[in-house]
Parts: sequence; C-alpha cells; structure tokens
Amino acid sequence: MKPDVVRGPMPMRRCGDADARRGHPWLRRCVAVGALLVASAAGGQTGGAPLQGTAPTAASSPATTVERFTLANGLTVIVQPDRRAPTAVQMLWLRVGAMDETDAEAGVAHVLEHMMFKGTPTLAEGEYSRRIAALGGRDNAFTSRDVTVYHVQLPAARLREAMALEAERFAHNAWSVEALARELDVIREERRQRIEDVPQAQLFEQFQAAAWQVHPYRRPVIGWMSSLQGMQAQTVREFRQRWYVPGNAALVVVGDVDPQQVRRWAEATFGTIPARVVPTRTPLVEPPQRGLRRVQWHSRVPQPSLLMGWPVPGLKHPDDDHPEARDALALLLLAGVLDGHAAARLQRGLVQGQGGERLADAASAAYGLAGRGPQQFVLEATVRPGVPVERVEAALRAQIERIAREGVSDAELRRVRNQWAASEVFQRDSLFAQARELGQHWALEWPLDANERLLQRLQTITAADIQRVAARYFGDATLTVAVLLPQEDAR
Amino acid sequence: MKPDVVRGPMPMRRCGDADARRGHPWLRRCVAVGALLVASAAGGQTGGAPLQGTAPTAASSPATTVERFTLANGLTVIVQPDRRAPTAVQMLWLRVGAMDETDAEAGVAHVLEHMMFKGTPTLAEGEYSRRIAALGGRDNAFTSRDVTVYHVQLPAARLREAMALEAERFAHNAWSVEALARELDVIREERRQRIEDVPQAQLFEQFQAAAWQVHPYRRPVIGWMSSLQGMQAQTVREFRQRWYVPGNAALVVVGDVDPQQVRRWAEATFGTIPARVVPTRTPLVEPPQRGLRRVQWHSRVPQPSLLMGWPVPGLKHPDDDHPEARDALALLLLAGVLDGHAAARLQRGLVQGQGGERLADAASAAYGLAGRGPQQFVLEATVRPGVPVERVEAALRAQIERIAREGVSDAELRRVRNQWAASEVFQRDSLFAQARELGQHWALEWPLDANERLLQRLQTITAADIQRVAARYFGDATLTVAVLLPQEDAR
Repeated sequence: MKPDVVRGPMPMRRCGDADARRGHPWLRRCVAVGALLVASAAGGQTGGAPLQGTAPTAASSPATTVERFTLANGLTVIVQPDRRAPTAVQMLWLRVGAMDETDAEAGVAHVLEHMMFKGTPTLAEGEYSRRIAALGGRDNAFTSRDVTVYHVQLPAARLREAMALEAERFAHNAWSVEALARELDVIREERRQRIEDVPQAQLFEQFQAAAWQVHPYRRPVIGWMSSLQGMQAQTVREFRQRWYVPGNAALVVVGDVDPQQVRRWAEATFGTIPARVVPTRTPLVEPPQRGLRRVQWHSRVPQPSLLMGWPVPGLKHPDDDHPEARDALALLLLAGVLDGHAAARLQRGLVQGQGGERLADAASAAYGLAGRGPQQFVLEATVRPGVPVERVEAALRAQIERIAREGVSDAELRRVRNQWAASEVFQRDSLFAQARELGQHWALEWPLDANERLLQRLQTITAADIQRVAARYFGDATLTVAVLLPQEDAR
Repeated sequence: MKPDVVRGPMPMRRCGDADARRGHPWLRRCVAVGALLVASAAGGQTGGAPLQGTAPTAASSPATTVERFTLANGLTVIVQPDRRAPTAVQMLWLRVGAMDETDAEAGVAHVLEHMMFKGTPTLAEGEYSRRIAALGGRDNAFTSRDVTVYHVQLPAARLREAMALEAERFAHNAWSVEALARELDVIREERRQRIEDVPQAQLFEQFQAAAWQVHPYRRPVIGWMSSLQGMQAQTVREFRQRWYVPGNAALVVVGDVDPQQVRRWAEATFGTIPARVVPTRTPLVEPPQRGLRRVQWHSRVPQPSLLMGWPVPGLKHPDDDHPEARDALALLLLAGVLDGHAAARLQRGLVQGQGGERLADAASAAYGLAGRGPQQFVLEATVRPGVPVERVEAALRAQIERIAREGVSDAELRRVRNQWAASEVFQRDSLFAQARELGQHWALEWPLDANERLLQRLQTITAADIQRVAARYFGDATLTVAVLLPQEDAR
C-alpha cells in the first residue's frame, strides 16, 4: 500500500459525520468535540490521518494505565494497552512542524515528511510502505504547524517489525537530489490543488498571513510556492539533522501490547540511535495588534465568505491557574455555545435565521485551546447569495456581543460541557484517537492525563466566565477580517 | 570620533533641505530627485549616512573615468578619481541586507554591522574608529534591506591605512558573547526609540508587513523585538561567515586617488583575504495580490495619517527593453509629477487645497525604481485635523485617476525630467554621493554608467507612458492601505 503522503492541508478530525459534511475542512476544528485534539494541529495541516476502520460507538472502554518511559538517548516511549482487538497503533511524534521553519525554507517540515518515505541505504524508495503492508498494516504521516507524525496501524503481533522499520528511517533516511526534485513536483502540484485552486484555502492563507505578523503561524504548512520552488536538498537534510533527534521524539503505542515488551523492543530499535542535542528554540513572539486588519481576496466563487479572527490566550498547561488559563477554558466553552451542534447559536441565528433573516449558508466558530504557538478565536460564515457581506460580519459580531451582554443559559453550558465529556468517551473507542491524544499531550509537554484534568476544570467554568471572555477579547483593535469575494466584485 | 551606528531606520537621502523638512524620513524617498539613489535602500534603512560637509552647488564637475577591477579572490574594486580636494571616500559594500535574513534572525544584518565595530584579535573594541579619527577621518555604516555599507571619509594621503583597517575587520572581526549582549541592549533600545515610540514608523512597519506577504521586504530592517531578544552569537557569526566573502563585496573609492595605486593597495590589503563561495540565493517571490488590504494602527497622535501602496514593476537593468522596464521609468516620472517640488500635484491638490479644500498637512508619492527585491508605489498623507481619512484616501486616488484620464502636461514632464538631470549634476559635487551611486549600481549588478543610460532613456518616456501606467497599476485589488489613528478613535 502506497502511503498517502500527498494529501493536502487537513486538520486532524475527531468529528461526527454531520460535522464533517459542513464547513471547510482546513478551518473546521470540531470545537468542543475536539478542540484539544486539534490544539497541536491548530489550523492548517498537511497530510491526512486515516480514520479508524471500525465505526466508533459510544460504549465506554475499560480504564487502562498509560506507561511512559525515556530511553537512554532521550526518546520518550508512551504505551497504552488496549486489548479489545489484536491490533496496535504506532505513532512516532516529532516536536517539530512548520512553526520551526524559517520563511525561506517554508514547507520543509512537510517536504521532509514526504522524503521519509523515500528510503534508507537498506530500504529502497517505497519499500517502507510495502513492508508495512506485507505485515498487514497501513501507514501514513502528517505535518502540522506544531508537529510531524508518522503512524502505522497493524496486527499487534507484528509491532516489533514496524518499530524496527520506523527506527531505521528515523536514523538513516537517505535519498537522492533527483528523488527530492520529483517529490517537490508532487508537492507543488499538491499546493496548486489544495490551495491555489481552492478559494477557501486561499482565503484562509490570506487570513493567517494578515492575522499573524511575526509568528510563523502566518505561513501555510505546505509552504509558499517560491519556497517550494527553491528548496535545496541541503535544507531538507539539515532540517532532519537538526530536529530528528531522539530527545525531540516520542514513540506512542496503543493496542494489544505489553508495555514492558514494547519498552524492550524500543530499546532494541530506537534505543540504538545515538543521542544528540535538541536545538535551542528562540520563539518569535507576536507583538500586540493595535488596529483592525482587513484583507479581501477575489476568486471564482458563487458567493462571498468571511473569516474573522482575534488573538486570544491559549492554555499553557491543564493545571495552569493564571487568570488567562481560566479565560482559555471559557473561550473553549464559548466556541461550543456558538457552534458545535445543530442548535448552537451561529447555526440558529445566521443559518436557520431564527428570529430574523437567513444570512449565511454556513457559520462556525473555532478555537484551538492549546498549541505550541499563540491561539486565535475564529468566526466563519459563507454568505447567502444576495446578502451584503457587511451584514453577515455584523451578525457574527452581534452573536458575541449578545453573549457579552446577556450571558449564556445553564442549559447551553451543560450541553457544551457534556459534549466535551462525551467526546472523551467516544474517542476511547479508537486506538488511533487515543494515540493521537497521547502524542499531542506529549507535544504540548502536558501530563498524560491532561484530558481528565481538563474535564474537571471545565466543570468549574461558569456562565459568568463565558460572558466575561465574550466581553473581553473581541474588540476591533485586534480583529482581522478576511473576505472572499466573487471575481466580478473586484472594483 | 565614535561611529554613529545606533541610528534608526532612515533611508539614504539626496534631497534638499526643503524636502528634508517635510514628510517622514523613513518613507520619503526624494522621488525624481533621487529615486535611483534609494533604489537599493528601498524603504527602511538602519544606520545613518553622514552627509557631505560642504554645501553642494550646481557647478558641474569634470568628467572622470571610473575604473573597475576584480581581485583574485573575487572582490570588486571601483575607483573614481576626483581631484578637486585632497580627500577620499572609501566604501565597502556587501551585497547582503535584511532581505537575506530569515524571519527568525530578522535584524541580524544590522546587528552584524554594529558588531563590526567591536574589534578583531588585533583591534580592541572601538579601536577601529579611534584609528580612523586619528587619521583625520570619520567613519560610519548603514544597513538597508538590500545592502550593508561601511564608509570612511578621510585625507586621501591616509587612504591606504583606512583600507588596511577595513580589510582587517572584514577578515577578522571577532567579539565576545558579552559584547553582543551589550550591543543587543543598545539595538533594542534603538528599536524602541525609532519604531515603537514613533507612530509613523509603527505605521510604516504595519504597512510593509501587510503589503508584502512572502517577500522579506515585509520585515523591518532593524528586526522584530523578539528576534532581537533571542539573537544568538552563533547566528550573527554564521551570517558573517556566510555573506562576508570577497565575491560578495565591492570596495568603492572616490577622491584624490590614482586608480592603479588604489588597486595595488587593495591587492595588498583586501587581496590577502581568502576566496570563498558566494552562497546561492533562493529568492522568495511575492505571489500576486488579488484583493484590497487595510490595516489600522492606533497610537497617541494628534491627527490621522495614511499610507497607500501598490506593487509595481521595478527596473531590472537600465538597458532592459521589456515593456515593464518602460513602465518602471514612467512610474518614476509619475512620482515626480505627483511629488518632488512645491508645485507638484499632491502638494497643490491636497496640501495647498488649490481648487478645493485643504485636506492634508503633508502629502507625498514615492517609488524606488530599482532594488534587489520587488518595488512599490506609495502615496502618503498626513490628514488635516477634522478631515475624514476616507476623503483624503479618495483625494489621493483621484490624483492618480485624473492623470490616468487626462494625462500630464508637457511642462510637468519637462520639469520632472530636468529635476532628474539636475540631481545628477548636483550629486557629482559630493564624493560621498558619487561613491554611494557607484556602490548601488554594483549592488544592482548594473553598469557603472547606469545613470547616464537612465537619463537618456527617461528622455524617451512620454506623457502617454505616464498616463498609461497611471491607468494600469493602481487598482483596488492590489492596494494596501495603512491608517494611523489617534488612540481615542479606537472603537
């Protein structure tokens, strides 16, 4: 099975089908059903994560104990036994993504992810995936702004062989300049198909480039066309040399496995990779925004659409008791009150037009909660044909203003809290989702039981907290608005 | 004399006093009087170039022959004898500036410029400037988006010693981590004083960050506060190691010198520096803009001001006969028709209010003509208190639209052409200006007689050309507007 490494920017999803049908996949964050999940992906991800083959059910799974240890070379191993089926998920997480690139090398994290499938001195191009398939498994990978992840799902009995293959390419990935040139052609075509030919993706790219002035989140994960055009083999190799070090990686295994056995296998495979220094990170800090930003984008679309975003606090740690941490949790619930189910406020107010006119064909709210970089609160709407964009913008603002003025009901608060709790149960049915969550928590340097702590903390967030954050973070001076307009609207 | 290396972003200037009194120094480009001059500086320069001590006159200087040769290690030497006084100007040009930085290392070119004054194994900190002063000279340096330049003006008889000192630090500049930490304090304070505390500079920074999405021109030459905060000694040293190579440098000498003598001295000083590879450049290409961008900035100012910019073609080479080259020359004259003297259109129409109301306290047009990166056409106005910003914006557009509709008069065209010609004569009186022009032409990879060729080509640009470019390049879909608003206007 050939790895599907040419997929476009798609956030990892943990959403129901109903959710998947609406909204734009590169923006939709499945807020309140999976905000934390996309925390480390945070808006713009390249490479698709395969979904579990089995349909998830609401049945709760037995509580299990996660084990975590560190190999002598610094590599973290996290194992969660789940014996309901004789399968296992292996994920190798690297705490490096597009945010660790410079602008000149924009896209290199994702390019490297592709090149990791191009072989080692002992594995020919494509051989990695052929062998995984021969083991009865399937593999893929994805790159986000925060992380790069390689994953395999296979019969648990063959896990050791998968680990050996993964360790082999971690340590010895090698390819020719010609192989890179071919792959860059593929990736530029991917960019054309996923960004240049998709007006909503173009809009999102424009939006992020305007909303962030300094922070690397301003750049698309896939890179700019010109950075892809000029990318040198040396740049890709140096990026790997720099960031693919054991101390910057975690192996996450979930499934029908014995933690001590996994540990021994990890020592025998990944453990032989020499330790190296994890590079110092000197983060670029986004300076305060002191004025409204508006960008337009004209394209061949039948109707306008609209993105509005504000920089807001993210959650640094689940136990963080700084007032901003409480605000972050309240913002998460605010997003859930606005959007997250068919009766949420944006849906009712703008799409169904309860109490007025139908203004939008779709409307959503998104908040990432946490990530390695700064967070945004984003409102989005697809404008109903004939409705002025300004009216939809005003209606989106009015939804926030109304909450700032009147607060939210107990029923709304309960519902959004329950959704979060339900999503926790829901995802336990998926080995893949469990592994993903463990990896994300590792990437954030959060404890492994972060979600339980979050669940508890969310219980302490009140309607007054939601009202307070609605009043606090949505001023014009920090707003960025991006509007997609039909080409004929160009003056 | 201590070198003034802590000056803020200032474009190099070749303007009269009247010009210097109005407008904002970091934006004013002395268009049509010196567009080419600022071509390589192109909007945002750090470090001030000292002006000639003697007041320039309109007297023409004798024609001289420039000589140019290349040392065995690749360093270019350009010598222009000018024997009117027993002095000389030495400039060392490096074809590296802020545009060669990545965002994470934003500001490093300028930081390195500062550190070049911090010594070598045989020159203590500050010793370079003390010795230049002891020779009867004065020295300084500046960094722009395109170039870094170190310059000395001194009695011609002491030139050899200045060359030896310059070659010494080119080859052996060295300093401690502590010296860098101290200098970074100075530079961060410089950034506070020159950008953070100057609303117009803040606006210009916001404007550039919005107008360029991908190209490094989007970043300020001085860097972001956070890139300055996190700057490592290794980053500065590697930048020097990478870019300060003989093949990427030109020594320009103008004054009472014999070219063959200068050549021998250059061989004995700079010639001993080993050749090294000039790094490959992989330029980031700005993608097409397909929608209006607006940014606001609120600050403590008594009245609003406004910047409007459009990406326009630059001139690649003086002999370039591509239609865009003709457009670039026409844009240069357009800027001169709009602004460049007290009776120019913006001044009359907006500031003096001829034929209507006085809308602005200042108004200007700027176009860089050429640079290593892409060019902009910028209109600027300081809004008269009480006048709505929108009216001033409309009035600026109307000036361009009127030219697009009605063209310009022969008298206007003649005047702006004559100004350019006069500025050519004018600058020949200054050794410094001559050296600067030679260096800029080298930086652009232009021939040494570029200005004469430009003068000839400008004679071929017609009123119809100006009308054509006014109609062509000023649409809303490529416009970026930045508005500075008094704090109380913040909603």
